[in-house]
Amino acid sequence: MYRTNTCGELRLTHLQQTVTLSGWVQRVRRMGGMTFVDLRDRYGTTQLVFNRESASAELCDRAEHMGREWVIRATGTVMERSSKNPNIPTGDIEIAVSEMQVLNQSEVPPFTIEDETDGGDDLRMRFRYLDLRRHCVRSNMELRHRMALEVRKYLDGEGFIEVETPMLIKSTPEGARDFVVPSRMNPGQFYALPQSPQTFKQLLMVSGFDRYFQIVKCFRDEDLRADRQPEFTQIDCEMSFVEQEDVLTTFEGMTKHLFRTIRGVEIADTFPRMAWHDAMKYYGSDKPDTRFDMRFVELMDVLKGHGFGVFDSAAYIGGICAKGAASYTRKQLDALTDFVKRPQIGAKGMVYARVEADGNVKSSVDKFYSQETLQELRKTMGAEPNDLILILSGDDIMKTRKQLCELRLEMGAQLGLRDKNTFSCLWVVDFPLFEWDEETQRFYAMHHPFTSPKPEDIPLLDTDPGAVRANAYDMVINGVEVGGGSIRIHDSALQQKMFELLGFTHEKAQEQFGFLMNAFKYGAPPHGGLAYGLDRWVSLFAGLDSIRDCIAFPKNNAGRDVMIDAPSAIDDTQLDELFLALKPHEN
Amino acid sequence: MYRTNTCGELRLTHLQQTVTLSGWVQRVRRMGGMTFVDLRDRYGTTQLVFNRESASAELCDRAEHMGREWVIRATGTVMERSSKNPNIPTGDIEIAVSEMQVLNQSEVPPFTIEDETDGGDDLRMRFRYLDLRRHCVRSNMELRHRMALEVRKYLDGEGFIEVETPMLIKSTPEGARDFVVPSRMNPGQFYALPQSPQTFKQLLMVSGFDRYFQIVKCFRDEDLRADRQPEFTQIDCEMSFVEQEDVLTTFEGMTKHLFRTIRGVEIADTFPRMAWHDAMKYYGSDKPDTRFDMRFVELMDVLKGHGFGVFDSAAYIGGICAKGAASYTRKQLDALTDFVKRPQIGAKGMVYARVEADGNVKSSVDKFYSQETLQELRKTMGAEPNDLILILSGDDIMKTRKQLCELRLEMGAQLGLRDKNTFSCLWVVDFPLFEWDEETQRFYAMHHPFTSPKPEDIPLLDTDPGAVRANAYDMVINGVEVGGGSIRIHDSALQQKMFELLGFTHEKAQEQFGFLMNAFKYGAPPHGGLAYGLDRWVSLFAGLDSIRDCIAFPKNNAGRDVMIDAPSAIDDTQLDELFLALKPHEN
Repeated sequence: MYRTNTCGELRLTHLQQTVTLSGWVQRVRRMGGMTFVDLRDRYGTTQLVFNRESASAELCDRAEHMGREWVIRATGTVMERSSKNPNIPTGDIEIAVSEMQVLNQSEVPPFTIEDETDGGDDLRMRFRYLDLRRHCVRSNMELRHRMALEVRKYLDGEGFIEVETPMLIKSTPEGARDFVVPSRMNPGQFYALPQSPQTFKQLLMVSGFDRYFQIVKCFRDEDLRADRQPEFTQIDCEMSFVEQEDVLTTFEGMTKHLFRTIRGVEIADTFPRMAWHDAMKYYGSDKPDTRFDMRFVELMDVLKGHGFGVFDSAAYIGGICAKGAASYTRKQLDALTDFVKRPQIGAKGMVYARVEADGNVKSSVDKFYSQETLQELRKTMGAEPNDLILILSGDDIMKTRKQLCELRLEMGAQLGLRDKNTFSCLWVVDFPLFEWDEETQRFYAMHHPFTSPKPEDIPLLDTDPGAVRANAYDMVINGVEVGGGSIRIHDSALQQKMFELLGFTHEKAQEQFGFLMNAFKYGAPPHGGLAYGLDRWVSLFAGLDSIRDCIAFPKNNAGRDVMIDAPSAIDDTQLDELFLALKPHEN
Repeated sequence: MYRTNTCGELRLTHLQQTVTLSGWVQRVRRMGGMTFVDLRDRYGTTQLVFNRESASAELCDRAEHMGREWVIRATGTVMERSSKNPNIPTGDIEIAVSEMQVLNQSEVPPFTIEDETDGGDDLRMRFRYLDLRRHCVRSNMELRHRMALEVRKYLDGEGFIEVETPMLIKSTPEGARDFVVPSRMNPGQFYALPQSPQTFKQLLMVSGFDRYFQIVKCFRDEDLRADRQPEFTQIDCEMSFVEQEDVLTTFEGMTKHLFRTIRGVEIADTFPRMAWHDAMKYYGSDKPDTRFDMRFVELMDVLKGHGFGVFDSAAYIGGICAKGAASYTRKQLDALTDFVKRPQIGAKGMVYARVEADGNVKSSVDKFYSQETLQELRKTMGAEPNDLILILSGDDIMKTRKQLCELRLEMGAQLGLRDKNTFSCLWVVDFPLFEWDEETQRFYAMHHPFTSPKPEDIPLLDTDPGAVRANAYDMVINGVEVGGGSIRIHDSALQQKMFELLGFTHEKAQEQFGFLMNAFKYGAPPHGGLAYGLDRWVSLFAGLDSIRDCIAFPKNNAGRDVMIDAPSAIDDTQLDELFLALKPHEN
């Protein structure tokens, strides 16, 4: 038997019991005739004592010579500590060891196994199995486990059935790039790994499953960034005989359940619903961070026509009011100007106006504006003494709003308004059905081709497709889009029309999605659903900057697993069996 | 709003309530001025009545003209039925409909949506979304959902953490054939889809996760049969600081939990443990069906040397005793002889002996054996009056035992001893570590290369590898191997030695499993685990003959999804991006 207890469980109530623990050596300290060892496992750390007065010299010698991360089993008696450690739950006791066996030695690890480690990113990725030993990393995986379990419990309670949809499916060129899998039994043909189980969950609705969900791996072969991985996990859901409001209510319930069970936060209120148009107008983003207000105010009427060329020629002038920030120094304001001018943001410049304690407004463009106009600015912005008004302008409304969005988020961060332990939830609704792409001169589905237009907008499909609103919705928490979905088209003819508007020929639509449109001919119910990004949601709850930190074995930016060294070359026999040849390439 | 209630929920307690239901038209019947419609959803069926005396002619006309599988919404009043249907929970009531809307029409489905359908296998696979509408098919998916959920609840309660391991990993030629995924970002290189998360779960033990599980898709590119699919689902588990008995106890607990919560069966007893050697000796199989006894009895001593050439030259003679089957007719016995002679089984012939009511034994080889010898046979077999003794012999012990195993299972089935609602659980233990392969003249790992030999057998690794027993175990229920696992090697040097015995060069072992052996150098704990085949287990609980019936969207024997028509050709641009070319092949 390896242990009677874990390293996190012994207390003063266990005094004088003989126990056996197994775990990793966190630290060995020698003090006089005593050797203290911190023994660690997933559940905690317990102090072992090897005392030369009561234990054998041989045992104490062996204890002294143990290294960090050795795996041992120790048997001894639970004793009260003379100097207690109030920082850990087992800090009142220690084990006076009488027997000890080394189960496995360890080389000196390449970085320290502590929350604050000396290991760099690359080293920790290469030795991910050691990085995962650190409490702060492993606890993210525990959080992920608990979140997934609570999602399942909640959805099961609401009558949802988890159904596994296939991983080896059919490649569809629309949307992101597929990972493909050559078929040995069907030479020259390929499966694709799913980007989402979208069509399968819709087929399950056609099958009358009524309420489906699945926590499922999805795949996209796209270039990577901090919050993208080639494989990611979705909480995928679909319901039949529902309207948009039914879906929102159900998943608000799930979200509140997660806040309650995982974060201990009770959310009583219904989540606000914000039209996509308003989100863009007031926050310059379809995923506004509503932990703080600082909405955009349009200033065309106030600031145009006063001889300031930049504004006079602008298609958009917008401002935000940073409460109490009038004390910003010239240096801080210059830094903000530099911030908005960075290539990633691309604004040409920033205008500011301070509201002084006496109510006077001092701006960086005072020479163009009278105090009267500046007071009008102040009124329009709702600014009060000691507030700072920041203004951006530009030729392109959407682009300038995006720049102002970045500035707003930066100011929110600087003013401490984006606390990771404060949560603000929101539904963004009424998305446009289509996005126009200038480059290819065609419409793309903003959500996906299965999204239903709002019934009242259907006539516009023929006359003004760009104005059609979709029955689509995103759930946004703290400026992070954690999930999104839509009411789907369940009518075969309307689905066919959507594919036409998206530039599919009849043949191409049939070839790729014929099975779905065919299914719609046999009694498809009205249905809708949504999908959450589990990785993002766990990151949000864990306060992480990157989704990588909540994935046990993530890939790097080149799509490589540097720990196992994958991908890698395969044998020629494997290629032959698949009827494949490699073409020349530069590596 | 689409519905106030589901089609499975209304009872006499709802009388006179106005309700709205949505669902599929199962059947339309006209009787006098009334039209009866059975409306179906996942939850049940409710009878709608359209009565020309109280409802409008237009409404009744529309009702009469609805077809099977149309989707409708109907509003009306809950009424007591005059002729009740005691076979369904809603059989006491019906809905007098006052309003009805067709939500979607349906073409006539290609087969009837009933438990007993007129659709053949191929048609039902092509229209799988309609096949899944049938209650008997959908209920398998519901069972699967509940089993997976109960597994998660149980394991969570036991401190197991579900961790998602990657799907895009590294190809290893050892074992079954991998599905591979070409990497666009790493030209000429491939990921593999996991055959199991084996190495990752062992790394998680090295990381101190202590108790891991995952319900996870796995992939094998092998030729298919009824109980094999290219993608299948494992319940994958691993524990640290455990010995074999700890693992068996934990998963016996899980199994009992599933029997209790899913099948309503309480199993009080500890599962019997049977050595692999005994399983082969007494049942000719490493997964004996222990719902019935009928053990093999070796008959070499009794039957050899009496001048019957077939037996005299045999390396093995074994018999089974079929209780009460002495009444088998000549025709039945001939059929059994034909059965064992089938090419799949390959026995040369079968000898039988009847114990008559007076105790006399009559055999098919009477001319070689005296009644005295036949009485000795009877005694050795433990046969009583009216029992039937069936005997096979052959030159190859293992092969003959397998033939006798098939005969035993067939007799068990014929005698009604293999009831699908009776369950017999068993652990088969003490597997050999290696299997010798005559063709390639090398040892293969019987379980996998990470399985630990029994400590007391380690010295035999150098002298007699074939005799080394493994700390490996299979859980067998009703002759189905539902799961299996082992205590793993956690010592870097022993793991290296295993790879040597399996014919890996040092370089090859390093290239493929270096990351694991390297990980073992940094304090790997003793660990072990197992994996269950979820598909098989669900099939067993559902009483299905094929795992296909518990998979929502299975592949056919050619690895094709005939519904979505995958795999399929991909665009040349996709091939170019992957630096791949197709080689000539015949299709």
